[in-house]
Amino acid sequence: MGMNIPDASLPRIVIIGGGFGGISLARSLKGKPYQVVLLDKHNYHTFQPLLYQVATAGLEPDAIAFPIRKIFKRHSNFFFRMADVDSVNTATNTLYTNIGEVKYDYLIVATGSKTNFFGLSAMEEQSMAMKTIPEALNLRSLILQNFEKALLTDDLVRRHSLMNFVIIGGGPTGVELAGAIAELQKHVLAKDYPDLDFAKMQIHLVEAAPRLLASMDPVSSAKSMKYLEELGVHIWLETAVKDVVGKKVLTNKEVTFETDNIIWTAGVVGAAINGVEHALTRPNRIEVNEYNQVKDLTNVFAIGDVAQMNSTNYPKGHPMLAQVAMQQGKLLSSNLLKLIKGEPMKPFSYNDLGSMATIGRNRAVVELPSFKFQGLFAWYVWMFIHLISLIGFKNKVVVFINWLWNYVNYDRGIRLIIRPFSRQEPSHNKE
Amino acid sequence: MGMNIPDASLPRIVIIGGGFGGISLARSLKGKPYQVVLLDKHNYHTFQPLLYQVATAGLEPDAIAFPIRKIFKRHSNFFFRMADVDSVNTATNTLYTNIGEVKYDYLIVATGSKTNFFGLSAMEEQSMAMKTIPEALNLRSLILQNFEKALLTDDLVRRHSLMNFVIIGGGPTGVELAGAIAELQKHVLAKDYPDLDFAKMQIHLVEAAPRLLASMDPVSSAKSMKYLEELGVHIWLETAVKDVVGKKVLTNKEVTFETDNIIWTAGVVGAAINGVEHALTRPNRIEVNEYNQVKDLTNVFAIGDVAQMNSTNYPKGHPMLAQVAMQQGKLLSSNLLKLIKGEPMKPFSYNDLGSMATIGRNRAVVELPSFKFQGLFAWYVWMFIHLISLIGFKNKVVVFINWLWNYVNYDRGIRLIIRPFSRQEPSHNKE
Repeated sequence: MGMNIPDASLPRIVIIGGGFGGISLARSLKGKPYQVVLLDKHNYHTFQPLLYQVATAGLEPDAIAFPIRKIFKRHSNFFFRMADVDSVNTATNTLYTNIGEVKYDYLIVATGSKTNFFGLSAMEEQSMAMKTIPEALNLRSLILQNFEKALLTDDLVRRHSLMNFVIIGGGPTGVELAGAIAELQKHVLAKDYPDLDFAKMQIHLVEAAPRLLASMDPVSSAKSMKYLEELGVHIWLETAVKDVVGKKVLTNKEVTFETDNIIWTAGVVGAAINGVEHALTRPNRIEVNEYNQVKDLTNVFAIGDVAQMNSTNYPKGHPMLAQVAMQQGKLLSSNLLKLIKGEPMKPFSYNDLGSMATIGRNRAVVELPSFKFQGLFAWYVWMFIHLISLIGFKNKVVVFINWLWNYVNYDRGIRLIIRPFSRQEPSHNKE
Repeated sequence: MGMNIPDASLPRIVIIGGGFGGISLARSLKGKPYQVVLLDKHNYHTFQPLLYQVATAGLEPDAIAFPIRKIFKRHSNFFFRMADVDSVNTATNTLYTNIGEVKYDYLIVATGSKTNFFGLSAMEEQSMAMKTIPEALNLRSLILQNFEKALLTDDLVRRHSLMNFVIIGGGPTGVELAGAIAELQKHVLAKDYPDLDFAKMQIHLVEAAPRLLASMDPVSSAKSMKYLEELGVHIWLETAVKDVVGKKVLTNKEVTFETDNIIWTAGVVGAAINGVEHALTRPNRIEVNEYNQVKDLTNVFAIGDVAQMNSTNYPKGHPMLAQVAMQQGKLLSSNLLKLIKGEPMKPFSYNDLGSMATIGRNRAVVELPSFKFQGLFAWYVWMFIHLISLIGFKNKVVVFINWLWNYVNYDRGIRLIIRPFSRQEPSHNKE
């Protein structure tokens, strides 16, 4: 078996990863004099910022996934292959994958990031991560399965454990998920399970740092905490999770949590491929220069979450955000042209357009370069920005209609256990 | 573990199965003086007539699935439990399930039908069935995976096998699926995979009887055959599949098919539970009298596909159709009341509202009691009837928007391989 890509007289650019960075780069290369090969282990692009809505029965996968072949339907000299990349030999310009080898003239690693369990293997086995659509669907199934189970037991300790949620990590994913689960509790689960006592359902958000949304302004942290507390979420700051034993989550404080629903959003590391060990940084990112060139190499680049470009403003590299990846992808497409022509490349400079998080209905925190605001208007801005950022008109329509429907009806209609989740394998390996 | 259903002073009616029959019955019992317990192994009702559109990337599961708890949100004395029923002891009025036992005063078996492989075990292992949403999703994944694989091989025999479709069974499911795959080929796959030679992609529909849609009028059979042939589908009548060896499908004729895509829609049998062996008929249905009472029992009933009520008009029982199940469910709700009051029950009489099948874009065959018609207008009627039959306003909107979008854009946007299908287990056991 091989990739079966025709030899081309044009230089071949191989991009690993169809995330925000890889797609942005490949799109910018349209009509340029290259053969572009895009590899991804999925045949679709995932709009990760809305994964938590898939996990909480608000959206189906088709709303936030877009077939990669469709994005590039009208591109010539473009080849997509579904492949899992293992390693690269930068001396021979060869990439090794589960579907064979491929040679490249230019390689761009845009493999993003993966969940980091900081070596807590019991946690890795027992918690749910949420970086991919299958993981989000597993979480949706688990939540619903546990409520079905809670109905069946008279043992109140068991029942409360099944109804208890512990979200570890108070970044945007943890905050948004906590808000969505609180809404689910109030408007959907309490009606679906009238036999259960929902005063006993608790949602705990556990964060090691002294505030939520540590990457944002303290005002946003305080407001998001206030909004979550109004929704009934219990917030534990400066509380580091140490381990999980049985169903008990242990922390560095006296507090422990007994729960069947552990959600891990506490950390990510770069998802680097093998063969670039010389450039690996501690969080498994690939060190690049200001042109996204991998250390000591001229024809290998890394962009997005997996790239670490240290600079005065960002001494530990840029934050792992879609905006960084997209901007790096776009710049790289013109830099590649310059490199081939022998012209000087343009260094990357991150244009921070802001960040935001939503907390349940009607509440969000937004930070734009010029000003910060929170509340209902921020929530509208959050929705608008996310809608226009989705690829494809149809996905925008599907998301908009679902949001409108769920908002007006206080509903989450996709509370379907299509593939029951089983703990035989860790959620994050199961697709 | 037990079902944890409160004892009630009211008579307890237990319904097994949340299909068309069970839902229709349970809805009709609203406000009546019973405790109603509904059991199903899924937490949602499936609108099976549109499963083939899930399999061909036209609809997401949420469009054709509806959470059972949501249907009965405002019903009092109603209890749903997700359970797999194993058997019944009709002497002690006890039901045995994977979540424990439950006693009943009245039992209604509405377990529907399951795929029948007629003892062809190799076929059962290697073909895709399409009776459930997980099966339809598996088929969607398989089709897309096989095209990704077809790109990777230079072996033309392998490639054509990956692009070859054999649908066994020319009933409504086989006919509708063949039409949908033909549309997928023409409007979607050919654009997604410009490197493949789509003249080599073949769709074969194999039927043992002398005509397609044998349960309908010969005019409908002839028209549906014509429509399918116009779409390029190869039809093999009076051709019985005998076995599958490797990737080769053998028939009672000289023709064989080499394919990686075998879809089995050639037969169903009743999905009876254990404990009613005395009433089992050859196709594994449960023999009932004209009140849907199971043979020799007064408080146990069967409705829908699993029930066999022999009558003058239907000497082999009614056809396995949603209409029959719904009508039997509705009548049974009033008969149960009569039974308890000691009044005579009303015998069931099937009101045949007609049947229909769609073939690709713009074509359908429709048979109403008063007249038959085919073509574009039939297609509109088909769409209208299916839209209004879906449970819930939101599902109607979602399906309508998807149809409109797919129609205008010649698109199937859900060509996503979310959970890659693997042949380690037969598709029909894997959820």
